[in-house]
Amino acid sequence: MTIGPFASRLLSPLVSDPDVNMHLTDSAAIVAMVEVEAALARAQGRLGIIPQAAALRIASALEDFAADYTAIGAQSAVSGLPTIELVAQLRRHVGGDAANYVHWGATSQDIIDTSFILQSRAVLACADRRLASLVGKLRALAQEYRATPMAGRTRSQQAVPISFGLKVAHWAQPLIRHRARLAEMRKRVLRVQFGGAAGNLSALGSNGIAVADALAEELNLAPAAASFHAARDSICELAAWLALVTGSLGKIGHDVALMTMSEVGELADRAGGSSSTLPQKSNPIAAETLMTLATHTAAQLAGMMQAAPQEHERGGAGWTAEWMLLPPMLAAVGGALRTANEMLDRLIVRPERMRANLDASHGLLLSEAASFALSAHMGRAEAQALVKKACHDALDSGVHLIDILKGRTESSVDWEALRDPANNLHADGGLIDRIFKDA
Amino acid sequence: MTIGPFASRLLSPLVSDPDVNMHLTDSAAIVAMVEVEAALARAQGRLGIIPQAAALRIASALEDFAADYTAIGAQSAVSGLPTIELVAQLRRHVGGDAANYVHWGATSQDIIDTSFILQSRAVLACADRRLASLVGKLRALAQEYRATPMAGRTRSQQAVPISFGLKVAHWAQPLIRHRARLAEMRKRVLRVQFGGAAGNLSALGSNGIAVADALAEELNLAPAAASFHAARDSICELAAWLALVTGSLGKIGHDVALMTMSEVGELADRAGGSSSTLPQKSNPIAAETLMTLATHTAAQLAGMMQAAPQEHERGGAGWTAEWMLLPPMLAAVGGALRTANEMLDRLIVRPERMRANLDASHGLLLSEAASFALSAHMGRAEAQALVKKACHDALDSGVHLIDILKGRTESSVDWEALRDPANNLHADGGLIDRIFKDA
Amino acid sequence: MTIGPFASRLLSPLVSDPDVNMHLTDSAAIVAMVEVEAALARAQGRLGIIPQAAALRIASALEDFAADYTAIGAQSAVSGLPTIELVAQLRRHVGGDAANYVHWGATSQDIIDTSFILQSRAVLACADRRLASLVGKLRALAQEYRATPMAGRTRSQQAVPISFGLKVAHWAQPLIRHRARLAEMRKRVLRVQFGGAAGNLSALGSNGIAVADALAEELNLAPAAASFHAARDSICELAAWLALVTGSLGKIGHDVALMTMSEVGELADRAGGSSSTLPQKSNPIAAETLMTLATHTAAQLAGMMQAAPQEHERGGAGWTAEWMLLPPMLAAVGGALRTANEMLDRLIVRPERMRANLDASHGLLLSEAASFALSAHMGRAEAQALVKKACHDALDSGVHLIDILKGRTESSVDWEALRDPANNLHADGGLIDRIFKDA
Amino acid sequence: MTIGPFASRLLSPLVSDPDVNMHLTDSAAIVAMVEVEAALARAQGRLGIIPQAAALRIASALEDFAADYTAIGAQSAVSGLPTIELVAQLRRHVGGDAANYVHWGATSQDIIDTSFILQSRAVLACADRRLASLVGKLRALAQEYRATPMAGRTRSQQAVPISFGLKVAHWAQPLIRHRARLAEMRKRVLRVQFGGAAGNLSALGSNGIAVADALAEELNLAPAAASFHAARDSICELAAWLALVTGSLGKIGHDVALMTMSEVGELADRAGGSSSTLPQKSNPIAAETLMTLATHTAAQLAGMMQAAPQEHERGGAGWTAEWMLLPPMLAAVGGALRTANEMLDRLIVRPERMRANLDASHGLLLSEAASFALSAHMGRAEAQALVKKACHDALDSGVHLIDILKGRTESSVDWEALRDPANNLHADGGLIDRIFKDA
Repeated sequence: MTIGPFASRLLSPLVSDPDVNMHLTDSAAIVAMVEVEAALARAQGRLGIIPQAAALRIASALEDFAADYTAIGAQSAVSGLPTIELVAQLRRHVGGDAANYVHWGATSQDIIDTSFILQSRAVLACADRRLASLVGKLRALAQEYRATPMAGRTRSQQAVPISFGLKVAHWAQPLIRHRARLAEMRKRVLRVQFGGAAGNLSALGSNGIAVADALAEELNLAPAAASFHAARDSICELAAWLALVTGSLGKIGHDVALMTMSEVGELADRAGGSSSTLPQKSNPIAAETLMTLATHTAAQLAGMMQAAPQEHERGGAGWTAEWMLLPPMLAAVGGALRTANEMLDRLIVRPERMRANLDASHGLLLSEAASFALSAHMGRAEAQALVKKACHDALDSGVHLIDILKGRTESSVDWEALRDPANNLHADGGLIDRIFKDA
Repeated sequence: MTIGPFASRLLSPLVSDPDVNMHLTDSAAIVAMVEVEAALARAQGRLGIIPQAAALRIASALEDFAADYTAIGAQSAVSGLPTIELVAQLRRHVGGDAANYVHWGATSQDIIDTSFILQSRAVLACADRRLASLVGKLRALAQEYRATPMAGRTRSQQAVPISFGLKVAHWAQPLIRHRARLAEMRKRVLRVQFGGAAGNLSALGSNGIAVADALAEELNLAPAAASFHAARDSICELAAWLALVTGSLGKIGHDVALMTMSEVGELADRAGGSSSTLPQKSNPIAAETLMTLATHTAAQLAGMMQAAPQEHERGGAGWTAEWMLLPPMLAAVGGALRTANEMLDRLIVRPERMRANLDASHGLLLSEAASFALSAHMGRAEAQALVKKACHDALDSGVHLIDILKGRTESSVDWEALRDPANNLHADGGLIDRIFKDA
Repeated sequence: MTIGPFASRLLSPLVSDPDVNMHLTDSAAIVAMVEVEAALARAQGRLGIIPQAAALRIASALEDFAADYTAIGAQSAVSGLPTIELVAQLRRHVGGDAANYVHWGATSQDIIDTSFILQSRAVLACADRRLASLVGKLRALAQEYRATPMAGRTRSQQAVPISFGLKVAHWAQPLIRHRARLAEMRKRVLRVQFGGAAGNLSALGSNGIAVADALAEELNLAPAAASFHAARDSICELAAWLALVTGSLGKIGHDVALMTMSEVGELADRAGGSSSTLPQKSNPIAAETLMTLATHTAAQLAGMMQAAPQEHERGGAGWTAEWMLLPPMLAAVGGALRTANEMLDRLIVRPERMRANLDASHGLLLSEAASFALSAHMGRAEAQALVKKACHDALDSGVHLIDILKGRTESSVDWEALRDPANNLHADGGLIDRIFKDA
Repeated sequence: MTIGPFASRLLSPLVSDPDVNMHLTDSAAIVAMVEVEAALARAQGRLGIIPQAAALRIASALEDFAADYTAIGAQSAVSGLPTIELVAQLRRHVGGDAANYVHWGATSQDIIDTSFILQSRAVLACADRRLASLVGKLRALAQEYRATPMAGRTRSQQAVPISFGLKVAHWAQPLIRHRARLAEMRKRVLRVQFGGAAGNLSALGSNGIAVADALAEELNLAPAAASFHAARDSICELAAWLALVTGSLGKIGHDVALMTMSEVGELADRAGGSSSTLPQKSNPIAAETLMTLATHTAAQLAGMMQAAPQEHERGGAGWTAEWMLLPPMLAAVGGALRTANEMLDRLIVRPERMRANLDASHGLLLSEAASFALSAHMGRAEAQALVKKACHDALDSGVHLIDILKGRTESSVDWEALRDPANNLHADGGLIDRIFKDA
């Protein structure tokens, strides 16, 4: 298999999203770094820290800069950073005296971190749209199947009837919260990084803070109280959010994969993957891919957190580790959101199989309902014992639980109403409405 | 070594905090579960769902319940849960007809999750106080050493002078943000869990949602739109916050350990650990423990995220994994916050060693300042080349960089002012103030 | 929930094994450390490095040493280690001149690492017995169900018939390999640690290496070329082995949980966990616990690997992290092996449900067999197209695939033989035999 | 930053090795898959399972096959696998009746896993050579500095004198063991995967096992008792080995980074990375990169272990996760081995700084030696107390420890011999020899 699954021609169509990947390519990285350098020049020109003419020259020259990627890579191997050579190329491209003012007072990390935040912002905007779209699709599904009974399953076993609509609403619930989390974390994550060589804006005398704020303004990022060169909490908060999102999508995938099992058959993916040898198969590829991406992202998150306690004013090893771990997380979220959206578009719902699976239990899923109904007429312990016995007899005999209970009690329970699982969905609709009220 | 480091008599004094651990013992778990059962009875009595007399009887009886831990453990091994046997014991303890109304309409996960949230709430309250205390101590340190120069270090190398106060303020920065994050996540994390057998409140007919809300009110928890039995995002958000906190404290520990190295000596921990054979040693135990706990917590977080995509309406394997991973994370945060607070109380700061380490570089840390100062009089590239050459000569000859530069340029740079690192801390004070303004 | 799941009275019966836990308690840790100190005295007495009388006195006195755990814990909080205070207590207990020769030339890490290896050896011996027992049970199961057809499932979908015996043999395969791995790694893992303060046996002059070898001999451990104070590869190799074992058991658990699903029902656990509200449920607690422990252990392994690059001659933070991560891994392996063994003892196999699930597919699982049978009479592509069409028609009509194909081809395929899944298990028996031949 | 650090033109020169990456590209993956399909045809032709002419035709045609990567990727997105479309392309390329015999009796996983093992074999061969080269370089360094004293450091503090040669030998120790581990695991890891649709070789009647063995022979892989479609222990064993290797290299990196610190200065990397603003800096890029790759690889390993418990006969989600996690681990090992080799080639050792750092302690590192020397003349406790007091006085006064002790005791200790750290390296040479004896 290949070294860069998100970049591979063989695999990336499976696990990623071109709309997100485009913000994470080599050229997107260069574009973002150049954008930061240009914005820095504009900000410093505006504040009179560098000559206004130089600022204009830099900003205009950088519009048509074409990087020599190979030279940058070669220098990365030596300096550990793409910016040393990039800045040299930018200065040659700008030329003249203005060249001296490129990267004025900045450190490599100011450029790399800020540009990565620009890239992340683009991905997050896309992710938020995709989340909104997913929530919309789930809401429509939840409404459509609001009263469709199926087996609620706990610890892999059928438990009590629920509505498929509520199941879907439960899938949406965390996605709605992820959007709220994203809104809250923007102010911390989408911040400018600008601290100079060691975080105290050493090269800029008394002007440093003003430059940092002006740069934030140029880039439409939140200002930062100070640089966060070695305080990686906000970067890790972003990573955690990405893992939370893929985790929630992985749960949808897990459920869909289980519901498309041959023996369950309640859902199908219209585009089920075919097999190289088995003509009858229809594999739940999209559902599995969601689980794959959740596993992948959770693993990267751990690396991000391990890398967080970086040394002194600016670390090396931990910071570089972020470059290896975080962009794939962004790509994975892109892939997961694309996959989930497309899977929902193709999802085939089979209410008749849901009903058949419910019916196959000879009414055992109604045991709780029966037990509570009987509790109105006798002690709960007595009711439970009665129902438990009846459950065993239903299992052994194949006679429906309700029929057994009917014959054994003289209470005024409305057994026929109870028999229909659809009559046991008391709160499902109300819960669906509460869940989507927050969306 | 021992199986439960946080519970071990040999190790827990090193890695944990009794004030936090007390919320995470077996008995604290039982107390919290009993509290939820009692609150449920009160809520249902209030709403008329169970007889008011039964509710009163339950609530009062549970005040003096003593669990049989061994029996609960034995049943856990069979049922996978402590609640089956606990509820049986509670019913026996309550006795009479009221016993039937214990755990009415609830599922084990309602009780276990909600009780764990009560335990977490107690830990988080303690953690927030400890964070506030830490920020206060760091603010005082930052003010005291606001203008104390030391070597700013990037990628482990001396870079430019910074103030020790700013370094300390940078330590505080993420802690201030963690408190803000905690405030934001409370509404999602400190919620009631109440969904009944499969999340649709099946046993409670049309009253389910009202019970869930009343239970939240009884326990002073946020109401939930719906249960989150298999939507573990908020539990994982809590876990991520815990890892963010230990990560930030691990960074402080990392810096302190590096600064207490024999060759650096800028900080010392008054309680430095002694060695079994070396009388002269003073090991930075507290600083290292902060790093240990960061590593530990990051590892647990990954497990939490991997466990997140739980099956169907309520999972088994993933949920149980949380019980193994999350309480140690809470304990670790407790240990890290206690350790950091105590370490700061004992911290010895040695400005003279900071200055000596600065001076040992023959002025090399002033190269950036010199280069920018010269840039006012010649092209930046020329200035940089001049300084770079002078740096090499300073390294070779041991002559101070400023003296070399003084002899090679005729510019009007005020070399003597530049020579003093304390004169190169232009923005440090301003940055310190900005950082603590948000606290 | 509770802080130390493996030590909790509420949870440890679920997730651990008393036979393993007993080697991982506080007192087991003390016993092992004392054993190392005694062996060191004997070794040094034998070599004449300490007075023979002192050696005898130490060895005999340490037989009835009783530790003050609280004092050790209190000192751990200061020194970061239990050994400083332990050695002080040992010296007081030995008394007289001999006391001076306790811990002669050793460093804390020599004692702690070696004692932990003694604890690990006891656990590994138990684990190897449990693995052997598991392999034996699986071999018996595989033989019993050698020719029992069931649906082979790939990507959660029914694929082709296999024998349940082969499925079980596939479960055993990695366990057989784990025993081989364990045999190979013993020489690296079960080694003595003895290097003195910084690994060069500094205190022992020219006798250091001889002492290290004699200590290994006393403890029946492999000698080490040199100490491995900061070379944690063998400790991590042990950790990786533990994660491999729980991963393989987790896979068995995963399969069993899926096969006990209400809709599948091919296996049942006689001790299925009951529910607090649903009388009919029988939860696959043991199977899920195996998955839980796999998740837990994989998470700890990552922490172990992250902690591996320890500083200089002996690290602090990373080494302490091992104490928090590795003992729970050993406990988890104990719990997983106990759980798997007990689960197999209770496993109910339902060949009739296996057959029913096969039959429910209207012969679709025979598509590959049909396609290969037809390929003997026509081109493979033609045969596949014919079968694929017939599969779709079987799905639509409910007519058995073989009946459809029979009517559409005139080939001499023995359709009736093909119809019986049991006739399609050509290699299963041979594979079972090959797998267990290595056991 | 970019999505695929190992494939990025900007970053891969820093973190990877072209000699390894070449085995992990899209085209290498295709080549390996085609190699397996060709070997399968040859094996089956030889056994008479497919017509010999078809086998020859396939084997010869596949020698000049050119894949349509885009079409494969597009199909991957649907089928979750590159092989469906690849096999279709291969059949078209082969043409005629022989086309029917391409991929005869195989499943996609047989091809993908076996081809990945071929890719891994190539990487492991390279890794083993690089490990051997590293061990050779470390052996030469260890010999050269066999008697060069430096401060041994424990818990970041100077402890006792050691030889730099022994430090280097300790670096080599785990690498020597990694080679031994690799030799042992080859038989488990470099195996053929061949099981057909669900592991029982269903399509091949009684010939299945013979085909599997013949395929192994064709590819010069170890035969497997049976397929390991869902038994991922050997794949995870490979992953664990990769993490062990990067962990050990990360430890070397960690030490080198600490020893190149401005205040320590005992080592330097001739190619130290320059800074974008600070002319004097020489960043330990290679050393840090080793730590980065250790962090990265440990994180991926956790994902591999989490993905291990795959469902039934062949999983989907977990298997796909391996494709995302394992190739980057192989690339990271390549990068780490290249980086370590190059770093050693460039390493500047500064014995004079080692000596100066030793001397800066006023003899405190000799406290253990003094204490043991005195123990020959008085009780150990008394000797330790005397030395401890002298240490404090040395620290306070700046007088050398040996001078203080000399004045306070009348023992016949040879203080002048003790004063020279080089005289305190008793076992270092012997330990170095023992370590490399196993190489």
